[in-house]
Amino acid sequence: MLECLVDGEISDRILAADRGLQYGDGVFETLAILGGLPRFWQAHMDRLAAGCEQLGLPVTPQAVLLREVQTVSAGHRNCVVKIIITRGVSGRGYAPGASVKTNRIVCSYAWPVDPGKLIETGIRTRICKLRLGLQPALAGLKHLNRLEQVLARAEWTDKTIHEGILLDAEDHVISAIASNIFLVCGDSLLTPRMDRCGVRGVMRANILKVFKSRCQQRRIMLDMLPEADEVFVCNSVRGIFPVTRIDHWEYSIGPVTREVQQWLSNGISSPSSKG
Amino acid sequence: MLECLVDGEISDRILAADRGLQYGDGVFETLAILGGLPRFWQAHMDRLAAGCEQLGLPVTPQAVLLREVQTVSAGHRNCVVKIIITRGVSGRGYAPGASVKTNRIVCSYAWPVDPGKLIETGIRTRICKLRLGLQPALAGLKHLNRLEQVLARAEWTDKTIHEGILLDAEDHVISAIASNIFLVCGDSLLTPRMDRCGVRGVMRANILKVFKSRCQQRRIMLDMLPEADEVFVCNSVRGIFPVTRIDHWEYSIGPVTREVQQWLSNGISSPSSKG
Repeated sequence: MLECLVDGEISDRILAADRGLQYGDGVFETLAILGGLPRFWQAHMDRLAAGCEQLGLPVTPQAVLLREVQTVSAGHRNCVVKIIITRGVSGRGYAPGASVKTNRIVCSYAWPVDPGKLIETGIRTRICKLRLGLQPALAGLKHLNRLEQVLARAEWTDKTIHEGILLDAEDHVISAIASNIFLVCGDSLLTPRMDRCGVRGVMRANILKVFKSRCQQRRIMLDMLPEADEVFVCNSVRGIFPVTRIDHWEYSIGPVTREVQQWLSNGISSPSSKG
Repeated sequence: MLECLVDGEISDRILAADRGLQYGDGVFETLAILGGLPRFWQAHMDRLAAGCEQLGLPVTPQAVLLREVQTVSAGHRNCVVKIIITRGVSGRGYAPGASVKTNRIVCSYAWPVDPGKLIETGIRTRICKLRLGLQPALAGLKHLNRLEQVLARAEWTDKTIHEGILLDAEDHVISAIASNIFLVCGDSLLTPRMDRCGVRGVMRANILKVFKSRCQQRRIMLDMLPEADEVFVCNSVRGIFPVTRIDHWEYSIGPVTREVQQWLSNGISSPSSKG
């Protein structure tokens, strides 16, 4: 961690009574800071506000968050900033007090290195044993209850496997552990619906906007994976990675994946890339 | 909060980088301290160890926890102690580092007042709209991912409703929000299985042991609720509460509920009440 603000003050600690620790009662965003500017700022803020509303949390003013993101990222041309909003402190018990005062934690981290040039060469993945539970009340949100992802990521230690593919309890493909997934089938870009589990990623949302005419959100069954022409995963910080392998299924890196990567590296065509 | 130890030191704060906050990556126990002694100590320790094992967390020695529980409860004849064990601090990302150093937070709270003598007069409940998602990998554990309970508890503000009944995604009865549930049907005590969601409560486990010959763990459909002769909920801190109402269904407080309450207030017959 490079720098951290808790409720606007320089600190790396929160109260143990915070409901973020006690219950995972909150939401978060992880942003790429590139050339000193937060990428997809408005999309992150929109998702954060939607998450807060769904959990009944007061929405923190964007200006406050932007100032704090700028503070923790100052002096770092490229870095990662994580914003956590919790329901703050309450007494014991699930009911929050009468007046909620949210807590915000804004921290910067070093920009992740891609030692293998994986953006170019693609990643190897496996299908996780853990199945995501279906919970429409929390689906799509980037909330703090992430034990499913922790358990799924703990399934392997082989460093040549870079990501895990997550299925839901009915064996639909949902996402990777820390990224969303797209299948390229002919001219179409298919990505799973996020209405029963999973996270509505900001990079995913941008791809859906920019490549709207060719994208479909739909249920994706496991047996569609070996039929796909190309597969890629995406994450608002790390970008777009071709998938070259899922367990024993192999994929070549195709023109559509390269086209989407090209859109991202051009940057300027994004509808919500303004900082 | 009365007193708090973080990793053995007097403190009310944890590192913001702790995975307990970042992902809800940990487990907890809430114990009743009665007459200066922790009730059901061994049962709490057994469940905590089982939870740590299931999440791949090193188990904290009981002697360390007992000493810290005694420290935070010293001078309080009756109080509540909450123990949280997290996977500690790691870098960004779901994968924990190579060596995990768990963090423990041991805090005491004032003994809850029962202003309405609800143990005697019973409680009114409602059926929550939120349905628990099915997740066998986490079922039974008292882990830190509690957003479902937070959302369910936020469904009502009417102070005459004391608890909410939780169903799963297939409309099976699972528990109340902060307690387990038993239905009395003739001579039988029925309580839901905790194999797909819910928490294996310590009070529930003790009732299952002591009243073994009359207890069944089974799937309980919603339509079995109005057929029950008696209903009660139980919680290792607050005890055993008769349920007099679930939405529009009314129940009288019957002899079996009183018998189980009597067992608890006698205390000594419990197989795991030794502090």
